[in-house]
Amino acid sequence: MEISHLGEFGLIDRLTKDLPIVNASTVKGVGDDCAVLRNKESDILVTTDLLLEGVHFDLTYVPLKHLGYKSAVVNFSDVYAMNGTPRQITVSLGISSRFTVEHIEELYSGIRLACEIYGVDLVGGDTTSSRQGLVISITCIGEAQADKVVLRSGARDTDLICVSGDLGAAYMGLQLLEREKAASAGQKDFEPQFQGKEYLVERQLKPEARRDVIEALEKEAILPTAMMDISDGLSSELLHICKAGNVGCRIYEDRIPIDYQTAIMAEELGMNLVTAALNGGEDYELLFTVPLHCHEQIQKVAGVKVIGHITKPELGCAMITRDGSELALRAQGWNPLAAHSDSD
Amino acid sequence: MEISHLGEFGLIDRLTKDLPIVNASTVKGVGDDCAVLRNKESDILVTTDLLLEGVHFDLTYVPLKHLGYKSAVVNFSDVYAMNGTPRQITVSLGISSRFTVEHIEELYSGIRLACEIYGVDLVGGDTTSSRQGLVISITCIGEAQADKVVLRSGARDTDLICVSGDLGAAYMGLQLLEREKAASAGQKDFEPQFQGKEYLVERQLKPEARRDVIEALEKEAILPTAMMDISDGLSSELLHICKAGNVGCRIYEDRIPIDYQTAIMAEELGMNLVTAALNGGEDYELLFTVPLHCHEQIQKVAGVKVIGHITKPELGCAMITRDGSELALRAQGWNPLAAHSDSD
Repeated sequence: MEISHLGEFGLIDRLTKDLPIVNASTVKGVGDDCAVLRNKESDILVTTDLLLEGVHFDLTYVPLKHLGYKSAVVNFSDVYAMNGTPRQITVSLGISSRFTVEHIEELYSGIRLACEIYGVDLVGGDTTSSRQGLVISITCIGEAQADKVVLRSGARDTDLICVSGDLGAAYMGLQLLEREKAASAGQKDFEPQFQGKEYLVERQLKPEARRDVIEALEKEAILPTAMMDISDGLSSELLHICKAGNVGCRIYEDRIPIDYQTAIMAEELGMNLVTAALNGGEDYELLFTVPLHCHEQIQKVAGVKVIGHITKPELGCAMITRDGSELALRAQGWNPLAAHSDSD
Repeated sequence: MEISHLGEFGLIDRLTKDLPIVNASTVKGVGDDCAVLRNKESDILVTTDLLLEGVHFDLTYVPLKHLGYKSAVVNFSDVYAMNGTPRQITVSLGISSRFTVEHIEELYSGIRLACEIYGVDLVGGDTTSSRQGLVISITCIGEAQADKVVLRSGARDTDLICVSGDLGAAYMGLQLLEREKAASAGQKDFEPQFQGKEYLVERQLKPEARRDVIEALEKEAILPTAMMDISDGLSSELLHICKAGNVGCRIYEDRIPIDYQTAIMAEELGMNLVTAALNGGEDYELLFTVPLHCHEQIQKVAGVKVIGHITKPELGCAMITRDGSELALRAQGWNPLAAHSDSD
């Protein structure tokens, strides 16, 4: 169905019909000039992400439902990275004429699924036409106990540096998807080869936010001193934490968690595995620091690994390689401002 | 300066340097995964707008500073339309390679000026490259006393329908700017002709949100029963209010406030003046209803005019023309989902 057939309000009505409200703080959702929230007990967290077709996603291999899911989840990840709980999102879409109502419903079904799984209410947004493909802008509002908000600036000398999950897999998934896209060019009935690499594809197309880690830390009564989610690569985020806290760090190459599929794929592509894990980006794992005395407790948190420690600032930021030498960390993560030419 | 020279974080640092914080509810602004807000006394309002180059603005005649100002103000307008006060905004930008650092600073200077004038803190955002011109997504967070939030659904039979300011001028300003753009095509040293029409140009390029009206209503202790801001045209918004409240309405053609510059321009262009005032859009005036007993009080509010009244739903929504006939109101406002072809 052509979107112009429904018009803006018709499309919004259709997309937002029967939207559930699960949070007590959502007083009024979609359908007025503003959403109305009520939240007397806790601090409010606000984060926003802008995703543009051709820059952040390629619809050749990204299914719209996955795209919707991921667009929501990356915002939830930012809220968890403050030690908060995501509660509401607004979704703004710019839609070009090649998209039908069914396409947008598919995208929305992914957003709604993410909201359902993470207990978040969709409370508003803006819908407009676009001359240039799909534009997705999501803002997420979360809450956190005022004395438990974790900023990126709190890391102190001797703190332990921890990461959840494993790193580099989403980046390798992207390489794999790009390789298969290139291989498919001009071919009919092309069957992409993902056998044995499903994990990489899933990490790229359908990342999850680490609510489980936040809950596990709470259960162990561990309050991180600093925390971020890893969206631009471990190196880049760790440098942010060190700069914000005016500290240095040492991490150990042999402690960086890497899945075996990531390792196999790096070998296949002739890429440096550790570089991919340090700079790959889009992992949406949590990077955080805890006081040294939490050393035993942190072992009890499933899926979390200590990869190094915070130092005095004058020691700089470095990785100790397997052969014992020091390699200065540099931010080589994905640059979202890499020059793109106007296509118009 | 090329933006790639600074990179994402360099650009953000430069744009957000010395950002003032004026609201007690802003605990932590730019520089972490989320902004942190604290707001124990009031309800929280959230609104968002997505503006795309080529759809919502034409940089041929829109100065970047004005564009920044307007992008912020249209969000503030949504918060005032709930009877709230805007407190924080997040600003996400998609920037293509033809923009320099100076361009983006110019845009930001307009956003910062709007924030300064309206007392709003800029607390976060996202900055990325774009393949397709400039993308601006702004989310505004406001606050309102829980028992004073005005939804669009509260209008009741016999309520008076009020509008602030005058209507149709922003639309006429757009027509004028488009006319001068067409006239300038291919000409060097073209001087656009705006004499005697400065008000129209200003209404299009630099609208203001009606904080003054909200303050005046508060002073007169008038709490509207329903309220919206007029962004898509009076007809369209009034139909929203009637649908949301399950009521009808009668407005009077001869009461619709129109500036004389708007009237002169409509005549010059051979356009129907009332159609422009009803459907023009981008007025950012307030449309609201008050109980009949407020009739005398509302006269004291400067710049507000009673244009009609709410009826029972079975009477429908109509305008009484100057010759006394009834004309059914229809939403013919600007359609943001009008088909735009992909340019890529």
